[in-house]
Amino acid sequence: MDLKNQKKYFEFAKIFIDKVPFNKILGLELKKFSTERCEVGFAMKPELIGNYYQNILHGGVIAATLDAVSGSMAAIGLLEKSTDPNDEEFASRIKNLGTIDMRIDYLQPGRGEYFCASARLLRVGKKIAVTRSELHNENGEIIALGTATFLVG
Amino acid sequence: MDLKNQKKYFEFAKIFIDKVPFNKILGLELKKFSTERCEVGFAMKPELIGNYYQNILHGGVIAATLDAVSGSMAAIGLLEKSTDPNDEEFASRIKNLGTIDMRIDYLQPGRGEYFCASARLLRVGKKIAVTRSELHNENGEIIALGTATFLVG
Amino acid sequence: MDLKNQKKYFEFAKIFIDKVPFNKILGLELKKFSTERCEVGFAMKPELIGNYYQNILHGGVIAATLDAVSGSMAAIGLLEKSTDPNDEEFASRIKNLGTIDMRIDYLQPGRGEYFCASARLLRVGKKIAVTRSELHNENGEIIALGTATFLVG
Amino acid sequence: MDLKNQKKYFEFAKIFIDKVPFNKILGLELKKFSTERCEVGFAMKPELIGNYYQNILHGGVIAATLDAVSGSMAAIGLLEKSTDPNDEEFASRIKNLGTIDMRIDYLQPGRGEYFCASARLLRVGKKIAVTRSELHNENGEIIALGTATFLVG
Repeated sequence: MDLKNQKKYFEFAKIFIDKVPFNKILGLELKKFSTERCEVGFAMKPELIGNYYQNILHGGVIAATLDAVSGSMAAIGLLEKSTDPNDEEFASRIKNLGTIDMRIDYLQPGRGEYFCASARLLRVGKKIAVTRSELHNENGEIIALGTATFLVG
Repeated sequence: MDLKNQKKYFEFAKIFIDKVPFNKILGLELKKFSTERCEVGFAMKPELIGNYYQNILHGGVIAATLDAVSGSMAAIGLLEKSTDPNDEEFASRIKNLGTIDMRIDYLQPGRGEYFCASARLLRVGKKIAVTRSELHNENGEIIALGTATFLVG
Repeated sequence: MDLKNQKKYFEFAKIFIDKVPFNKILGLELKKFSTERCEVGFAMKPELIGNYYQNILHGGVIAATLDAVSGSMAAIGLLEKSTDPNDEEFASRIKNLGTIDMRIDYLQPGRGEYFCASARLLRVGKKIAVTRSELHNENGEIIALGTATFLVG
Repeated sequence: MDLKNQKKYFEFAKIFIDKVPFNKILGLELKKFSTERCEVGFAMKPELIGNYYQNILHGGVIAATLDAVSGSMAAIGLLEKSTDPNDEEFASRIKNLGTIDMRIDYLQPGRGEYFCASARLLRVGKKIAVTRSELHNENGEIIALGTATFLVG
């Protein structure tokens, strides 16, 4: 990624993370991104709790975060494959980008002060992109895994 | 369900829907519940949007809603199987109730004014409960499907 | 389905069940089919066993059977939507038909003498079809559930 | 793993791969195993074909192979955690080992002469083990991914 691309990607990541209303509720912040990996972070806060006895994240917060970071990764994958990101074909592919399905594995209770969700692109074809994602807390403990399929054609 | 059970179940559904902080963010309201089916509803509002061009629900809102209704259904299933809901074994099973994994299939964009999520219990054993869930809009159009596995032992 | 369609569908089901080498290993027989539901059956035999202490089906046999019946259902869905099943567009869609992903929930050990796998089409769009499937034994006990996504565009 | 453990693990892998009737149909051979990773291989043969136009593996063969290698990995994980593999508690956990659910992502058509399936253990707790698995062909091209949850308690 040269500097020009860096800026282009950053704008994209902005669209896919910062501008989405529900991502603001979650408090998602873009941390890192490259053509292989995208990472967002968010702080624990009372309204994200799912189990008030145990003070742990709601499963839906975890799912939403993994969905957001995975979708951003799929968008970056499309951008990377596009010969001309200003052309109509690319615009149409981004517009049609949508989650087909997602699986989340909840490995441990979502305990922590700050969480980090990252996604990798396993494959991006003409029609389908596949990502794997993970959620960790500030101690590096793994909390959940995601696998998602996106329509990109 | 006799009247006494009806009240007992209602208290449970309260715990699993109303008291959870993140469910308030989503605006989830308990609509119906029985030993076979649990249903929650919520209204569209700007902060639940995932794609502001298309004015549709965030995939994570859908996932969170299906997770919430499915978990409540699993809890009701445990309650139904319990011989004495005041004993320690039951309390321990409810305390340990947790989502192992979930799959969401996004069938159509989440367009609508009011959404309804319902879950059915497919199996509740000594250790594992399995649910299937669906999200519809106010026109009865199906938006998403869920399948989830819960640890109940 | 009129008689002419009945024959057309039967040929299709033949292709998707009978002619596939691995389906012969499994012993799959087409039992019923309509535009909404497809059903195959197979008999227990020693080589399908996964756990020889318990004499139960291999999880992979269950997955393979649910994959086969779901793929056939998706093909029938394409056929049903096609205005002209002899045209090139239809041929191309069938040729590109492929499983994107599948989830299997193993509800109970695969005990029995004869098993029945059925699939329903939940949605067939321009690019994606989604099915749900079930496996029962001869006593009607449910053994496994499947959810699968197919590329049909 | 010292030499004694090496032998113990080998016997286990034998049980989980070689002695299972359906694994013989697939032609699975144990290639490598450690406490972190288990690997099996199998050669293409006509009866494993799912699409005879394209000469590719049946999706069910892929699912069955990923299920087999993942289950073996979960068993090795149990063995590793066991303080005394001859005691009753361990025997009971192994006896109850069963797949709860599995997701398979089909990334590319199953073309090749020889295939390799490997699994890693992501987590093994008191009740649940979670694995991720992959299928490659002899050129190292990735064909499919699996995520599976096992009951181990």
